Amino acid sequence: MTEPKASLEQVRERIDSIDRQIQELISERAGWAQEVARVKGAGLSAIDYYRPEREAHVLRMVVDRNRGPLSDTEMVRLFREIMSSCLAQEDPLKVGFLGPEGTFSEQAVRKHFGHAAYGLPLGSIEEVFQEVAAGHADFGVVPVENSGQGMIQITLDMFLTSEATICGEIELRVHQCLHSQGGRMEDIKRVYAHAQSLQQCKTWLRINLPDVECIAVSSNAEAARMARHADDAAAIAGETAGRVYGLKTLATGIEDRADNTTRFLVIGRSLFPPSGNDRTSLLITVNDKPGALYDVLSPFAKHDVSLNRIESRPAHTGKWQYAFFIDVSGHVQDAPIQAAMQEMGGAAAQVRVLGSYPVALP
Amino acid sequence: MTEPKASLEQVRERIDSIDRQIQELISERAGWAQEVARVKGAGLSAIDYYRPEREAHVLRMVVDRNRGPLSDTEMVRLFREIMSSCLAQEDPLKVGFLGPEGTFSEQAVRKHFGHAAYGLPLGSIEEVFQEVAAGHADFGVVPVENSGQGMIQITLDMFLTSEATICGEIELRVHQCLHSQGGRMEDIKRVYAHAQSLQQCKTWLRINLPDVECIAVSSNAEAARMARHADDAAAIAGETAGRVYGLKTLATGIEDRADNTTRFLVIGRSLFPPSGNDRTSLLITVNDKPGALYDVLSPFAKHDVSLNRIESRPAHTGKWQYAFFIDVSGHVQDAPIQAAMQEMGGAAAQVRVLGSYPVALP
Repeated sequence: MTEPKASLEQVRERIDSIDRQIQELISERAGWAQEVARVKGAGLSAIDYYRPEREAHVLRMVVDRNRGPLSDTEMVRLFREIMSSCLAQEDPLKVGFLGPEGTFSEQAVRKHFGHAAYGLPLGSIEEVFQEVAAGHADFGVVPVENSGQGMIQITLDMFLTSEATICGEIELRVHQCLHSQGGRMEDIKRVYAHAQSLQQCKTWLRINLPDVECIAVSSNAEAARMARHADDAAAIAGETAGRVYGLKTLATGIEDRADNTTRFLVIGRSLFPPSGNDRTSLLITVNDKPGALYDVLSPFAKHDVSLNRIESRPAHTGKWQYAFFIDVSGHVQDAPIQAAMQEMGGAAAQVRVLGSYPVALP
Repeated sequence: MTEPKASLEQVRERIDSIDRQIQELISERAGWAQEVARVKGAGLSAIDYYRPEREAHVLRMVVDRNRGPLSDTEMVRLFREIMSSCLAQEDPLKVGFLGPEGTFSEQAVRKHFGHAAYGLPLGSIEEVFQEVAAGHADFGVVPVENSGQGMIQITLDMFLTSEATICGEIELRVHQCLHSQGGRMEDIKRVYAHAQSLQQCKTWLRINLPDVECIAVSSNAEAARMARHADDAAAIAGETAGRVYGLKTLATGIEDRADNTTRFLVIGRSLFPPSGNDRTSLLITVNDKPGALYDVLSPFAKHDVSLNRIESRPAHTGKWQYAFFIDVSGHVQDAPIQAAMQEMGGAAAQVRVLGSYPVALP
């Protein structure tokens, strides 16, 4: 406290020296990344030596070590980009997603693969699966669950007919807020938002603004822009959008589900080893007879394997069969999961391991 | 060559140790960035201590020091992101651009400000100027020149009526290629591309594929997707798009102007000090009399100031006046530019310094 402040010039010299060291280390790291490729005797494509379990492990160490002042999210983002650049020294990863550019799915691609990977905007979720299967894309990113609206059936159904594996999961969180120019609830006659956001905040709107007109516009950013020019209108948009557009925030977290998260799966063509904190997705087909589901699930309970999710779909394989998508904690190589799967035995008509992959990072 | 290869485990341990050091240094850098804010006695917003000339200087040092293996572009990108994160510790920069998200303008924003800044998609170039003037956006990014199609008039005209200053320039380069599934020119009956790309490659198409049908689609990525499913079609798209979509490249650099670059300006509300390699944009109004332009320009030649660009527009100020947008090398504080501007004296009805800003980085 009593120390003299450093001058601006001194601080800048200090930063220059830090930058020099950071740059040397990044260059050295990039050199070692090439060495990994050599050790593996791999070909010329990033896909030959991309290891999601290793990346997840590195990023978890980054979070563990982080003492600020940067947030965990920012520090993870920077390391993601450093790894993305190191990996892209050979032919970069090609990642298919539901286009066009600028969508939520592309945000998920960038959060997981960084900006040095090639993004491949595609026309549909089916096409993402096809391109990965055909080898045109190394990986695909598809939405699988919205906490407000549940599982995305088309994505689940694709696993029934495709050979795709799951190599990762990505979570994007969005908190909806109500913003307006004037900042007074009683002035509001209209609420602008994207149709999906109106849907997500339906209950809150019905209770708190029962008589207002809800107007769907092309995006929440567009909604914020429109609200800015009106005394009697509000917009639903993310936390930052209100600040960005200079609006006052009337209410936060107004989505019906407090944890408004979209979950994406990274699909690929291989299974990867454990990262230390993994999730396993199984596709289990059972014959439609009493107790079948119970017989399938009880071995997991017995072996203390946590069940994270379960969703049933009519299987396309047989008339009276049902398919269950089951997510459990742990890697398929873990002894308890192995034991549970063996005990399940004849209760299931078919068990397919869709993938074991690192649990999503913040 | 005779040294034993490092094992994968050893390489990973080495990378872990490098990452630990990089993280410590980034954290220290972020701490010093906060110290800069304190030294400046600034408020809570990044705009209060954002210095484009300092950032340009830092990035030029990064390029000078770079010995690989990462490319200059990748290394600059990583440092841009590190600076972006450090700066965004307080309320991040708000940057308006011509939306929606995912456009070329947004790429320019991210190239210049990194991903920790807030992007503010706006409806028109006029709106970008208005939002910056009103203080809702700290900066704006607007396209000003496409090397194929010349200056973008609407952007120039905005400077005639607004007080905006120019704080930076950004260049995005795009090379167009022709790609097809089969890889044979003689099979091609149709060419898909975005309308603007068809326009940019008009001459090449007329000479090399005079009888093909040109079909405009929503984006070049879409064009590449369509070409993939046809034996007799090709797509115009960037260098990477062909590889990404698994097409064979028939010809590269087919745009009529070999250097197909879009140039953007960063607009703001202040003038900034020299960075060491700057450009100055002047808006000069002259009365329509013989020799007026010559009288305005000759002082620059006399003082060895390089003229980079000149573009005339009808001025809105007087009936027989013309406005010239002139870009010269150097900063307005440099003695030669000062001398030239003084000598210009009465030849110009009005001289306005739009800005002095760092020359675009690669």
